[in-house]
This record gives sequence, C-alpha cells and structure tokens, in this order.
Amino acid sequence: MRLNEVTISRAILEEQHRALIDLLEVDAAVIGGGPSGLTCAALLGKRGIRCALIEKKLSIGGGMWGGGMMFPRIVVQEEARRLLDRFGVACREFEEGYYVAKSVETVAKLTAAACDAGVEFFNLVTVEDVMVRGDGRVGGLVINWTPVDMAGLHVDPLTIACTCTVDATGHDATIARMIERKGGNIQVKGESFMWAERAESRILEHTKEVYPGLFVAGMAANAVAGECRMGPIFGGMLLSGERAAELVAEALDR
Amino acid sequence: MRLNEVTISRAILEEQHRALIDLLEVDAAVIGGGPSGLTCAALLGKRGIRCALIEKKLSIGGGMWGGGMMFPRIVVQEEARRLLDRFGVACREFEEGYYVAKSVETVAKLTAAACDAGVEFFNLVTVEDVMVRGDGRVGGLVINWTPVDMAGLHVDPLTIACTCTVDATGHDATIARMIERKGGNIQVKGESFMWAERAESRILEHTKEVYPGLFVAGMAANAVAGECRMGPIFGGMLLSGERAAELVAEALDR
Amino acid sequence: MRLNEVTISRAILEEQHRALIDLLEVDAAVIGGGPSGLTCAALLGKRGIRCALIEKKLSIGGGMWGGGMMFPRIVVQEEARRLLDRFGVACREFEEGYYVAKSVETVAKLTAAACDAGVEFFNLVTVEDVMVRGDGRVGGLVINWTPVDMAGLHVDPLTIACTCTVDATGHDATIARMIERKGGNIQVKGESFMWAERAESRILEHTKEVYPGLFVAGMAANAVAGECRMGPIFGGMLLSGERAAELVAEALDR
Amino acid sequence: MRLNEVTISRAILEEQHRALIDLLEVDAAVIGGGPSGLTCAALLGKRGIRCALIEKKLSIGGGMWGGGMMFPRIVVQEEARRLLDRFGVACREFEEGYYVAKSVETVAKLTAAACDAGVEFFNLVTVEDVMVRGDGRVGGLVINWTPVDMAGLHVDPLTIACTCTVDATGHDATIARMIERKGGNIQVKGESFMWAERAESRILEHTKEVYPGLFVAGMAANAVAGECRMGPIFGGMLLSGERAAELVAEALDR
Amino acid sequence: MRLNEVTISRAILEEQHRALIDLLEVDAAVIGGGPSGLTCAALLGKRGIRCALIEKKLSIGGGMWGGGMMFPRIVVQEEARRLLDRFGVACREFEEGYYVAKSVETVAKLTAAACDAGVEFFNLVTVEDVMVRGDGRVGGLVINWTPVDMAGLHVDPLTIACTCTVDATGHDATIARMIERKGGNIQVKGESFMWAERAESRILEHTKEVYPGLFVAGMAANAVAGECRMGPIFGGMLLSGERAAELVAEALDR
Amino acid sequence: MRLNEVTISRAILEEQHRALIDLLEVDAAVIGGGPSGLTCAALLGKRGIRCALIEKKLSIGGGMWGGGMMFPRIVVQEEARRLLDRFGVACREFEEGYYVAKSVETVAKLTAAACDAGVEFFNLVTVEDVMVRGDGRVGGLVINWTPVDMAGLHVDPLTIACTCTVDATGHDATIARMIERKGGNIQVKGESFMWAERAESRILEHTKEVYPGLFVAGMAANAVAGECRMGPIFGGMLLSGERAAELVAEALDR
Amino acid sequence: MRLNEVTISRAILEEQHRALIDLLEVDAAVIGGGPSGLTCAALLGKRGIRCALIEKKLSIGGGMWGGGMMFPRIVVQEEARRLLDRFGVACREFEEGYYVAKSVETVAKLTAAACDAGVEFFNLVTVEDVMVRGDGRVGGLVINWTPVDMAGLHVDPLTIACTCTVDATGHDATIARMIERKGGNIQVKGESFMWAERAESRILEHTKEVYPGLFVAGMAANAVAGECRMGPIFGGMLLSGERAAELVAEALDR
Amino acid sequence: MRLNEVTISRAILEEQHRALIDLLEVDAAVIGGGPSGLTCAALLGKRGIRCALIEKKLSIGGGMWGGGMMFPRIVVQEEARRLLDRFGVACREFEEGYYVAKSVETVAKLTAAACDAGVEFFNLVTVEDVMVRGDGRVGGLVINWTPVDMAGLHVDPLTIACTCTVDATGHDATIARMIERKGGNIQVKGESFMWAERAESRILEHTKEVYPGLFVAGMAANAVAGECRMGPIFGGMLLSGERAAELVAEALDR
Repeated sequence: MRLNEVTISRAILEEQHRALIDLLEVDAAVIGGGPSGLTCAALLGKRGIRCALIEKKLSIGGGMWGGGMMFPRIVVQEEARRLLDRFGVACREFEEGYYVAKSVETVAKLTAAACDAGVEFFNLVTVEDVMVRGDGRVGGLVINWTPVDMAGLHVDPLTIACTCTVDATGHDATIARMIERKGGNIQVKGESFMWAERAESRILEHTKEVYPGLFVAGMAANAVAGECRMGPIFGGMLLSGERAAELVAEALDR
Repeated sequence: MRLNEVTISRAILEEQHRALIDLLEVDAAVIGGGPSGLTCAALLGKRGIRCALIEKKLSIGGGMWGGGMMFPRIVVQEEARRLLDRFGVACREFEEGYYVAKSVETVAKLTAAACDAGVEFFNLVTVEDVMVRGDGRVGGLVINWTPVDMAGLHVDPLTIACTCTVDATGHDATIARMIERKGGNIQVKGESFMWAERAESRILEHTKEVYPGLFVAGMAANAVAGECRMGPIFGGMLLSGERAAELVAEALDR
Repeated sequence: MRLNEVTISRAILEEQHRALIDLLEVDAAVIGGGPSGLTCAALLGKRGIRCALIEKKLSIGGGMWGGGMMFPRIVVQEEARRLLDRFGVACREFEEGYYVAKSVETVAKLTAAACDAGVEFFNLVTVEDVMVRGDGRVGGLVINWTPVDMAGLHVDPLTIACTCTVDATGHDATIARMIERKGGNIQVKGESFMWAERAESRILEHTKEVYPGLFVAGMAANAVAGECRMGPIFGGMLLSGERAAELVAEALDR
Repeated sequence: MRLNEVTISRAILEEQHRALIDLLEVDAAVIGGGPSGLTCAALLGKRGIRCALIEKKLSIGGGMWGGGMMFPRIVVQEEARRLLDRFGVACREFEEGYYVAKSVETVAKLTAAACDAGVEFFNLVTVEDVMVRGDGRVGGLVINWTPVDMAGLHVDPLTIACTCTVDATGHDATIARMIERKGGNIQVKGESFMWAERAESRILEHTKEVYPGLFVAGMAANAVAGECRMGPIFGGMLLSGERAAELVAEALDR
Repeated sequence: MRLNEVTISRAILEEQHRALIDLLEVDAAVIGGGPSGLTCAALLGKRGIRCALIEKKLSIGGGMWGGGMMFPRIVVQEEARRLLDRFGVACREFEEGYYVAKSVETVAKLTAAACDAGVEFFNLVTVEDVMVRGDGRVGGLVINWTPVDMAGLHVDPLTIACTCTVDATGHDATIARMIERKGGNIQVKGESFMWAERAESRILEHTKEVYPGLFVAGMAANAVAGECRMGPIFGGMLLSGERAAELVAEALDR
Repeated sequence: MRLNEVTISRAILEEQHRALIDLLEVDAAVIGGGPSGLTCAALLGKRGIRCALIEKKLSIGGGMWGGGMMFPRIVVQEEARRLLDRFGVACREFEEGYYVAKSVETVAKLTAAACDAGVEFFNLVTVEDVMVRGDGRVGGLVINWTPVDMAGLHVDPLTIACTCTVDATGHDATIARMIERKGGNIQVKGESFMWAERAESRILEHTKEVYPGLFVAGMAANAVAGECRMGPIFGGMLLSGERAAELVAEALDR
Repeated sequence: MRLNEVTISRAILEEQHRALIDLLEVDAAVIGGGPSGLTCAALLGKRGIRCALIEKKLSIGGGMWGGGMMFPRIVVQEEARRLLDRFGVACREFEEGYYVAKSVETVAKLTAAACDAGVEFFNLVTVEDVMVRGDGRVGGLVINWTPVDMAGLHVDPLTIACTCTVDATGHDATIARMIERKGGNIQVKGESFMWAERAESRILEHTKEVYPGLFVAGMAANAVAGECRMGPIFGGMLLSGERAAELVAEALDR
Repeated sequence: MRLNEVTISRAILEEQHRALIDLLEVDAAVIGGGPSGLTCAALLGKRGIRCALIEKKLSIGGGMWGGGMMFPRIVVQEEARRLLDRFGVACREFEEGYYVAKSVETVAKLTAAACDAGVEFFNLVTVEDVMVRGDGRVGGLVINWTPVDMAGLHVDPLTIACTCTVDATGHDATIARMIERKGGNIQVKGESFMWAERAESRILEHTKEVYPGLFVAGMAANAVAGECRMGPIFGGMLLSGERAAELVAEALDR
C-alpha cells in the first residue's frame, strides 16, 4: 500500500472542481436538505434533470435528525407511506394509518436515494441573494461558504445560473423572503398556529411557483401561504417535495 | 386524512421509550458516528449483535461531511474499496489504486447500512463517564443529553450497561482519555505528525482492546498509540471499523 | 445494600414516561412556575382537576427567589395573607397590613402545595406555539426542551392537548403574544408605569379568559391589559392565581 | 387596599438587613443547596443550631431539579426512605428497595423543611475564600454576590464568621479545593468512575471533618476521598447530609 | 493593631443600610454620573437639598474619563470656566476662550465636590422604570442592581420616592425614553448632526422640566429636543447641570 | 460664543501629545490606580518627582468603587486615619479604632490629590511587557492601548523609560508575574487565606523592591510574599502606598 | 548598531502627531479602503488634492482580499482594464473582454499607488457622525478609534473638517444612511437583486453628489440608488472611484 | 459590454484551481504574511524559486498595519534602509540612523514586490499540522480554511508538499511549537523581555534551519531562541527575511 498525500489532495481538488464548474449552470437548484428538499431533488434526479442541492449546514437532513423533542422517531400518515417504501425506509404501524420510522434512517435513505439519482450536493454553502434580470425571472443564485458568514468575514460571493429554483428552506422560506425584502411581488405571510391535520391537507396546494422561476416546497410552502404549522409528522413534507419535482419538471419541459 | 397531534406525539414517545429501555443493556456500544464507528456498528449489527451507536452531535457522519477543506470528496485506496462496494457507495478511480467518492453519499450509505443491520442510533447524547466496577472492566456508560451541556445546565445523567464499548471518537479518543484521567492504566499518546501512508498501514494493529471491555477504532486507535495522522483518506478508517467489529464479536463469544 | 445502575435508570425512564404520556391530554396546562402559576396550579389540583405546570427554566419559582434586589424577602398585604397561611408560609407583620415573608420559603411551600395537590411539573420545557383548530379555541400546546433552544439546535417539537391554558409567564405574556403575533384577536398592551397600589387593585379584573381557552394570571394579566406594574409585593399575584383557578374550574364545568 | 411602594421597599431592606447582620456570626454555614446540603441544614436547624445555607445560584436545589437526563424523577434506596418520609416526600416503590420520587417535590419539601427549622438562606452568594487564622481553623468565609462575578466586575467581598463549615458543593468540592490550592493540608483526589453501589456504601465514611472546622458532605465527600461517583440515586446524599449534621453538632458541643 | 473582620463587615452593612433607607425618600434623584449630572448634584447638595446620584456603572464620571479618542483632555469655553474654577479644576488656555483641562482631574474634582456637598452616590444601580401615579407626576424610580441585569438574571426591583428626577443619562435620555415608550406625553427626537457651536448655545434652553417631575440635563436635554450633538467640549454640560439644579430648586420651593 | 470643532480637536491633540512625549522618560511609573497606587503616586508627586500613573481601565479607582459587596463603604483603622485626613476624606468612627468612609469619595479625593501633586494619568493603557537590559534592571515598560487587546487586534506596542516602577496591580501582581514568567529571579507566591489582621500588620514589610528597579505596593506586595488577604479594610493599602513612595524617593536619591 | 527604544517611540509619536494635526483640515476625506475608495483617493492625490482615507478596519482593502468565495481572484472587464494597467496590476484574459487578476496583488498595488500619490491613511478609525452646519453642507466628520467601539467602551470622539466627503463604504453606504437617519434629504434605497451587467453599466450615473458635500462611490453609489448588485467583478468599482475623483476635483475648483 | 455572471464565476474558479493544484508541490512555503515573511517570499520569488505564502488572516501584512499603538508609523534603522529602498518604500530620517516609514505603505509595497516576484498568496488558510516522514524532514503541510476553524466546524484538511518551510508566524512560532508539542527535537524558549537593541543585533544568528526542512524568520526566530523582543522597529525583521531567503536558496541548491 503506497500512499501519496499529494495525490489524495489532487484527487479531491480535481473531482470537486469539475463538480463546481458543472454547478455553474444547472437545470434545477434545490435550497435546503430537509425532507421536502431531499425528496424533490431525488425525484428530479430520477427524471434525468441536472439538479444541485445546496445546504447551508455541514450535514444534510435539516430538522429531521432530532425527531420530536430529541426522541429520534418521525410519524408518517397513510398517504405518504408509499414514499417511505420507495426510498426503502422501514416503518411500523402505530395506530391505523400512522407509521413510525426512525429519523436517522429516514435521513440516510432519502439522502442515499438522491445520491443514486445523480443529485450533486453542496453543503456548507449559503445562498446570499438571487439573480433577477430583465425578464423578471429568478435565473440564478448568489452563493458563499457558510463558515465565511459564521466567522463574520467579508468575502465576495460567486454566482450560479439555474433555470428553476426550489425554496425548501423550511419555516424561514429564506429565498422567498429575500425576494419580498427587495421589492419582488411575493408576500410571505408566515406560519400560522399548529394544526397538523389542516397543514398536511393544504400543503400540496401551496406547493407551487410563487415567483417566476421560484417554487416553494415543504414548510416554506406553508409559510409563504400563511398556512398552519405541523409537528413531527412528515407525510406532507414528502408529498410536497414530490409535487415540487413534478412542477419543476413541467416547467423545464415548457 | 384525519390527523391527531396527540397520536403523533404518543407514537414517538412510545416507540422511542422502548428503544431507550432496550438501550439500558446492550452487547456493544459504539461511541462516535464517523466512518470507523459506522462501519463497526453496521458490521456488528450484521452479525446479529445488539448494538447502539451513541453520537454527541445532532447528525451522524462526523468529520466526513466536509470532505477535504469543504470540497466534499473523500479518497479510498485499493484495500478498502471492497467496503465501499459492500455499502453501495459509488466511486471513481482517479489514479491507479486511488478511488474518489462523494462524502455526502458515503455518510448516507454507511448510515443506511447500519440502520438496515438493526443498529439503534442515539444522537445528541454525550458520554460523560464510564462505569468500572470491582472486576476492573468498562461495564457501562454514563450518558446525558448534549444540549444540557451546551446550555451550561446542571442535570444528572443516566447510565447504561454494555458488555463491550468501542471508542470511535476520533482524534480526541474521548473515552480512553476519560479512563486515563481517572487513573486507569491507559496512556493516550496523542497523534503524531501527518504521514498518511504510515498511519494507514499501522491502524489495524492499533485497533484493539486497550482496557478491559474498551476497544478503540479509527483515529482514536492511532491517537492512543501515538501513531501518525492521516488526511482525507478513509480506507484505514473503514478497515479499522471492520477489525473492531471482529474483535468485539470475538470478545462477546468468549 | 445492592444497587444496580440499570434499575435506577429504568425506574426513572418508566416513571417519567408514564407522566409524559399522561401529559399528552390534560384538563389544564399552566405555563410558568412563578407565584401566580404555582397558586393557580395548586388550587386546580386541589379541586381534582388534572393539571400540568410547564416551566421553561430548570428550577420552579421564577423571579420570586431573589426577593427585591437580591434581598430575599417579599411583601404581602392583608388581603392575601390567608393564602400565605393556607400554604404554610410564615410571615411577620412589618407595618399594619404589610407582611414580610422569606422568598425562598414562599417558593418552596407553594411548590410543595402544588405537588401535594397532584400537579405534574414539566421543567426545562418551552412552549413554542399553540394549537388552534377550526373551533378557534386554544386546544393544545407545542412544546420542546429548553436546552435545545439554548444550544441553538434545530429539533422538531411535540404537542399536547389541553382543554384550558393559563398564561402565567409574567411580564412577557408569552402565550398571549404568540397568538397576537399570528393574527389572533388579542392585543397585548404591555405593562404601564410602576404603581403598585393600582396594579394590585386591578389585577383581579384583568385575570380572565382573553381568548377562547386561554386565561391570563399574574403579571401576564396586567401586561395584556396595559395595567401598571408592581414591585416586590406579591399579594395580587397569589390572588390572581386563585381567581384563574376558579375561572378555569368554571370553564371545565361548562 | 392602600399600598405604599416605599413601605414595601423599607420592609424588605429592614428585614433582610437584620438577617445579614445575623449572618455575620453563625454556628454553622452550609455551602451548597443540593440534597446533602439541604438535609444537613434542615437537621442542624432542627437541633436549634444557628445555621446559614449559602447558595451561589438564584434557586435552591442544585442538580436535583432535572432528575436524570431531564426526566424529573429521582431514585432512593431502602436505607434512606425514612428521610423522604421525614421530609414528607411522596415516593413509589419501583422494584424492591428502590423508591422513585419526583425531583421537583423533593427539592421543595427539603427546602421547606429547612425553612421550618429556622435555617436562613443566602442565595446568589458566592464563597470566594475562607478565613484561617493562627489557630489553623477555618473560622469564617469570604463572600460576594454571584452576579458581580458573572458580570466580570471587580468589587471587594465581605466576611462572615462561622464555627463550623460544611462543604456541600458537589463534585467540585469548592471549599476543600480552595484550601488545597492555598497550601492547606487537604488532598482532593477527585471522583473516580461511576459505580453507584460502591459510592453509596462508602459515602458515610467519607463524610467527615477534613480540615479543622471544615466538614464535607454529599458528592464533595466522595470527591475529596477519590471515591466513585453515583448517578441519579440520592439515598447516599441524604444520609451523608444527616451524618454531617451529627458531626457538626458534636463539634459544636466540644 | 487588632482587626476583626466581622466588625469591618458590620460597619459597612450598618452604614450603608442607613444610606439605603434614607434613599427611599429623597428630594431629588439625579440619574447619571457624567459631567452634567455631577454638576447638578453638587449644586443641589450645596443648597441643602437631599440629593441622590444613581449611576449604573461601577465608576462615576461617564464618558468623560477618556477625553477625546482616548487622549484624556477636555476643552471648556470661556462661559463655563468659572465652574471649573469653582470645583478647583486646573486648566490652561489653548487659544483665546478655549481652556484645556485633564479629564481625570475633572471627574475627580466634580465627584469630590458632590461628596462634600452631601450627595449620596448609588453606583452599580440601574433605573428600570419610573413610578407615575394618579397625579400624572414622576414620583419615584424602580431600581435594581446593574450586575443582575448584566448576568441575565431575573430578580425583582425595589422602589424609591423622589420629588424631582433629573435625567442626566446622556445621548440615550434613558428616563425620558422610558416614559415615551409607555405612552407618556414626551417625544425624544434624538440627537441631530454634530455642530458643537449650536449645540452649546442651545443646551440651556433645552434644559427644562419635560414631564411633570422630570428634568433633563446635559446631552439628554439636547437629545430630547432633537438638537445637534457636541464633541469633547464640556462647557455646555456643566452649565446645563447648573441650570437643572436651579430649576429643581425652584420646583421644590413651589 | 464662537466654537470651532477643529480648534477643540487640536487643543486636545496638542496638549496630550506633549504629555505622551513627556511620558517617554519619567522618574517613576506607578502601575494600577487603586488605593495603594493612588497614594503612592500622590506622595511621589508631592515630593516633586516626575510620576506617571498607568491604569488599564477607563476609570481610575480599581476595586474601591464598589465598597464591600456593592455596599459602597470602606473601613480604615486608626493607624491610617491620618492619610484619610490628609487627602480630605470624611469618615465616621463606627467602633473604637474603626472608621467608615464612602468609597466614591475616597476614590475621588485620592485621585484629586494625585492630580494636584502633578501626577500624569494614562488610563486605558496596558503594560504588555517590561524592558530589562544588560544591567539587569527594570528600565522601562512596553505599553499599548487596552481596547486593542479587548478587541483581539494585533497592533505593536510602544515603550517608555522609567527609573523606578511600582507594581500596584493588586492580587494579580501583574508586573512581578511577568518577570517571573520570563525567568527573572522573583517568586510570586500568591495570596494566602483571608486574615485581615495579619495581612494588615505585615503589608509594610512586604512593600519593597523585589527586583532591581521594581517595587511592589498594596495587595501586589502581599501576593508576592504569599501573605494573607484582606477584605474591605483599606488602611494597609494606604500605608503601603506611602511606604512605596518613600522607598522610590530613596532609590531615586541614590 | 545602537538602538534606543525611547527614540523609536518618539519618532512614531512625533511623525504621526503631525499627520493627525494635518488631518484636522483636509480637502477630501474618503471613507472606506475598498476598490472604489482606493482608486478615488489615489487619483485625488495624483491631482495634488490633500486627501485622507479613513478605514475602520486594521487593514486596507475591504472585501477584495478574499476574491470570490475565498478563491483570491477578481475579474475586470475590458472598459476598466486601463485602470489595472495604470496601477500596474497584472492580469490575464480569460475569455474575450474578461480579465482575471489576483486579489492580493490588486489590493497591494492600489494601496501603493494611493501612498505614492500622497494620500494619508487612517486605519482603525470609525466615522461616528458627520458635521452639518447652517449652510446645510457636510463639512466635517466625527471620528473615533474602532477598538473603542469593538470593546464596548464609552469614549468621546474628535472631529475633522473636510470640504468634500466620499462615501465608499460599500453595501452599507454608512455615511449616506447616517444622514438619512437624522432627517437629511437622502433616501438610501438599498441594493436590489444581483444583475452584474446592469449594475456595472449604471454605476457611473449613480456616482454623484447625493447631499451637499457628500459624494458616493462604488457599491455605496448603487445602494443609494436602489441599483442591482454585482458579484466579484470589479471594473465598475474602479471606474466609479475614478468618476468620484473627477467630481470631487470639480467641486473643489468651484 | 455584455456581462455574464457565470463566466465571471468560471474565470475565478478555473484560475484559482490551477493555483491550488500548483500549490500542492512547491519549493518553498512561507507561513505568515508579516514583514519577515513578505521579505523572504519576495526575495525567494526574485531568485526564481516557486514559493507560496500562506496567511491565516484575510489580509496580508500581519501586525504591521497598526504601527505602534495605532499610530501607523514604523521605524527602521540604517542597516535595513536599503531594503526599504529596494521595495520602494518612502522614509524620512528622524534622527541619525532612524528612518520613519508609513506602516500602510510598507505593507503595500512589500506585498506588491512579492506579487511581482511571482509569489502565490493563500490567505484565509491555516496550517494545522506538518508532514514528517521516515527521513525526519518537514516535507509538507496540512492546511485548512481559517473560517472553518473560526466557526468551530469539523472538516478534514488537505495536504501540500514543500521542500523547505519558513516559519514566519511571529511571537507564536506556530510551526516550531507544533513540532515541539509532538515530540520533535526543537525547544521553543519563548521571547524574553523587551530589549530592542539586543534583539535586533541577534536576530540574524537566530534565523536558521531549526529542524530538517524548517527555517525560522523574524520574531519566530527570536522566540525559538529565547531572545529579547523588539517594539515597532522593523529593520531586523526585514533583514531576517532576507537571510531566511538566502538559507532556503542554499538548501534548495544542495
């Protein structure tokens, strides 16, 4: 076994450089690696669409790792069970129509599925701004390393072009709010009270293109619409990710 | 679709309660969810050994998520390629004998494999101390919620019993150092300079039972032995996890 | 004496698990373990109502521990003295109608009384949100571990159902403000200037149901009403807690 | 009801001033308001000994509030059950010889008992140093407000005289370490591994006068002796507090 | 030389207790120990008015210690020179009409003059709120220890009664803003641009009773009026303090 | 009244520049503006010795402002009363031989006396290092702005030359420790237990030249000698400052 | 080689004192040492105009050091290439019309050019406020040491007079916002979305006198105008700095 | 001018990627961008040696930016003047043999010279460890992004190979200490007292190869040797950088 540290470094730099260059122009960029973002990215990849998932944290999975109150279990209802099955996540029926899965397994299997579908992950990357040109469409993203921001440093960003953008950033609806703050025609109403049943039943209609080129998925969809919030039930999340993937695919076909 | 938030909460509490009660007495406890810990746990699980993986952070995967310098790629050499294959991680040969994989995919697939093997994950849990009784063996662990420590609160821990413990906590070799600090007969020599080749070639001999009931794997093994450190090459990590699993299995058979 | 650490851990987990499951559906949830919340919970418990007291800090007692400016004494006026007597708190008449008690003793005796009355305490638990459904009533609470928030982690909450909720969170009127912020029909006017006499005399009329299912007690009642604030005089607090308990009991009878 | 804010302030200042002046010379000072300190102080007070309990935090109760891992229950074994009964703490037998009590109730009842026994509490007060004169005895304490230290301010302390001092500061054994650091003839060996059974069985012999005028109780006793640590089992704590009270009473009789 | 630490502590406690009790009802309370507050207090004291100066920091002197940009000199113009002379502060003429003094000496001499005039100082004390009763007058202050706030603790305040209050808190105009925020009829316009000449010439007309019982002096006067700010020229400050003392004296005579 | 901001700035810069240039070579540098440093500097100045007082904080006075536990009173015994009188500090006899003074007044009057004696103050200045040349004498100081260090910036220092240096930095004995750390022949033993009587009686013999060119005064003298500590009794401090001034004067005469 | 530390200190103090005195009255003050500020200052200096560049950080160069996402390269388009040439910055044509330069070299060469042109740099200096007098013109600046603010200290500023001021503070447009906040007739609209082409093409028309005596350059110009933002393309920055220098020169000629 | 953000990003990525790949194997790596490191790198580059300068901060220049105590001037003595001239730094003779230069200009000109000599700069990069293989030589460096460390993240490093390494990290002598800590045969004695004359005269003999492949320059050389420290006189720094360049050139010739 002959190792050469320089070869190792070069291997990493060369491979990732190619990925970065490819990232500069993608069909779809999904922002946020929680349940809806992962589902959306995995299904976009499955359709052969060039898709990048951008996550500001070091790890993928978002708020799902901790289950409910650090008890690492999640619940999914009947309607979404087929997605668990599709991604190979084991679950147990607790009461009729309620399935319990392990949160760690759910994250791992969804991420693995997205990888298998050819999604490229960019973790520790923050979206600072969006690009909107004369056509009034979100046509690209302004990105930076997350640690630069965490360390309070002033370093300029880079930009990437993407035909469709999916805001799957959760309660904050970060991308939609960015556009609202700069005068774009979106109103982010913010989550309403917790009412899981209602939130779950409405999320699919809130999953849509809210600004030319920008789609919302998961809790970001409910936050934009002023819809109720849910707790540790994830069926709606998965279904919303699935719907967003369909909408993006249609938009790319246009 | 009729949801009931109370049912969701009860489902999570009941399911996880059972897991916690089961955790109180396990065959093997692996501390640390990095590459060597995950490999070890997955292979222990495969053998039908009741195994718990305890990780202090919210997410599983440790330092692997960021690849080298935030370029999310890792390198594995020839000898360890079969483990990548076994866990279903795609890789590309960069130069002869050097394979590059995506760091996100590697984490996801290793974690998924451990889940499939029946390993129970306890994330956001910190090991505060070990239990050593009259027989001079590490017979259990003293655990607490990580956020309790992060928040500077004073809350008493709980304890679990385990026949074998694997310290896969990386450079810090946290468990081994705990025993050293309290006068146990271990000397943690600390990592030496970076020399990937040497570090990779020696790690298997350093992977062993360093105190009755306590095994070390991955960088913790090298840190205890005063061995050189490696960079973003992970073959030795995976192989060390595999070896640790074999040693634990043997010990449990005794 | 034969101890077994695993038995100890199991005992704690089993007993508290039962309490958590019971918490999922209670008659009354009192938020905040200061003087008015403790009084309210103790008197609700006395009436046989299933009552949970949720406190975000590690210790129960709120701002009462420190007396006035860290001189650990509190003052109670004539009207409320009978409550001190009822809870067994010793006091000394300083001037006619003004009784001085020790702040530490007052906390301990009120808490002890609530325990004796069967109140279940959930400390280190934060209320993140409320549940409001189609009937427009506060029907439940969204809770999480406080250290999760203190540590800046992202972990999903759980939910509990409660028929009546008492906001006894002090100046902040946390629960009432939550509803106001999300567009519920409450206006939290905020405390006015200090005027102990007026604040004490008005607090009982401000102690009421301010939103379907939500009652306010103690300083939260005055804060919602825009009433004056008090200093380290606690008679009104105790009386307000007593009144809130009566109102909740009536509501539950309806 | 006519209130006068100035009367309220004067009442608090006058009453507490008297307590402070009384504090300047006490028979016994107990440092630390956890289970052993509270038990010790309560039993000293019962014997008619003038006793002050000094606690650096705002609330009394120490690490007991959080039970084990934030599940607010504690366990007490057979031998110590009579102390729970004596203080009026309800408990339930979990297995033979293991009783589970609520942590909140335990704190409240122990504190209430100490109050009833005439113990004076000084919370938010830190012991900065001890007084040792020509006779080589710990004859007093150097105290300051805790927030002064928390705020990083430089303010001189005050001093109090006490015939006997009980270090019930837990794992840190703060007072004993202070003396060790300044060259006094004590060696604080530090806690050893967790071994609840052994720790519980030895604590009474470690509860003793470790330096002229200084007694250790609870975990501080075990920490000085290099004894094993316990988890959330509190029988030894209560019994150690009881023993310390007996030793102090004997010393005062000399 | 025979010392007794307990006597020392008792001496401090007894003496300061008397001062605290006296503080509960004063003629005038000056908030802020900068140049205008010190001048005002010193001159009130000279007139035999019972005056307390409350300063939130540990040291008296405010922003004057550092001179201009840490060069510890201040400048005073002709009109105010007589006040420097009156307080015994040495100065040197730099150009016609401009006198330079040392900032350290200026603080020391003003403070010494206030002490000699019988002013009682309360440092490390924060004003949390004001008391306004039925007569619509500021009739008292709600005070707390500053370190309590710095340490993020929750401790109730005490209250004092004062016939006249002088807000000499500088740019922040803390007391005036408190009243504005709670709906009192004051508008704090905030400082305008720097224009020393104008600011100095107008400060005396802005020094006045801005709310029944509340006077403003120094930069607080200019901040309430929306007047320009000054730099390190202190004549207007001293003259404003003098004027405020005259106005308070007149008000007390009414 | 015609002001000109530029004239004000120029006046401050020119005056302070001269003081800085003068500071570059002084007879005596006193480090630390607490009671012993102020007394020493004032008495050196009185003797016509060119003396600079360097204080790292913004305000002069050190720990004296806060009295004992924020009760702003200090105690001085009979022997030192003449120094209070000399500096014009009012005091009251509490018991025979114990005089109580106000801490604020004591700081102000000592500082004023030093100013009157011609001492130049350099506040917000930190001593980073000392200069020792071939003659083995402390011959100068390496100074920097305190805020540079507080802000974590890297800026080079300047240096000043001084014939004698007085370490009056309190418990830390900063200057003496600096020399010890770099291998100079001093041993800083650190304060022993509190024993005011002994500490006060021995401080004068510990006030001496501890290294060629370096004198210690106040608590720094006791800290170097391993002497006991005192509480809020300041007689020894003042007398030690007086003695240090005598020793420095003698040394300068040599 | 005979060195004398005092001579070194005196040399620095004397030389910089002269520069500070000169700073008190300058023709032009440029705030911010990024690309546009440096270009502007260098070209003003070249014209023989007395110019000071004030930078709040320790180092000059602003956000340019880090290139794009820490890859230390910048891009400049055809139109601005002549400025790179003028300042001696090497560049390479990447595609037609796009030139890549090293960010470190660009900073160094621009700064060197400004030094050669006689610009005086004041780093670690913050502009706190502006001076506006009766003529309604920005006639001066209120400055302070940056570390004073970073350390949270309260120290008064000094002031300087300048005929023209250039706000080159980047996205924040600090000076323009200061005037807006105090009621001056400017509206800072804030940056719009990223659209490099448009932002670059419009920046010259936004580079202008936005308030009597105040000019904006670089991103501050676009931020005031509500114009789009750019990424790591710097041509517009350099050209805007050039234009600002021309406008200031014209204004000074008037 | 038609701009394309993607082209800009690609230009930066491609250009810097090439530099990173080149960095993987260099002749000389200089760690630290202060005066000695910059001089060394510039002179190495001039000799045609492939040299990389690695700086952990965002900006190059180290402690030189702030001059002495934020007065941005530095002093250089006669012997080193020729280096100022060589780099084009203007200076003024203050006294015979003492030249004063502006600190900002000195940084800019030294950096520009290094750029012109072909040195490649890697700022925001931290050296975490060194590579030492069987030959016992420092043969490479383990590097990471500085913000990763500042943000407290766990990300693996990369490695580079270099024939010679120059530790120019100042007082800390970071690289030398790394080797000492891991048992290499170096003793870093640490700086002694300030004595500029001696420090300047000895620095050239301390500038040497202290471990196979590792050279020390500037203050790091004096720190390793236990030599005295200097203040803001930079002649020795520049000369030491020059000497280190000569030594490295010789070593590469061997």
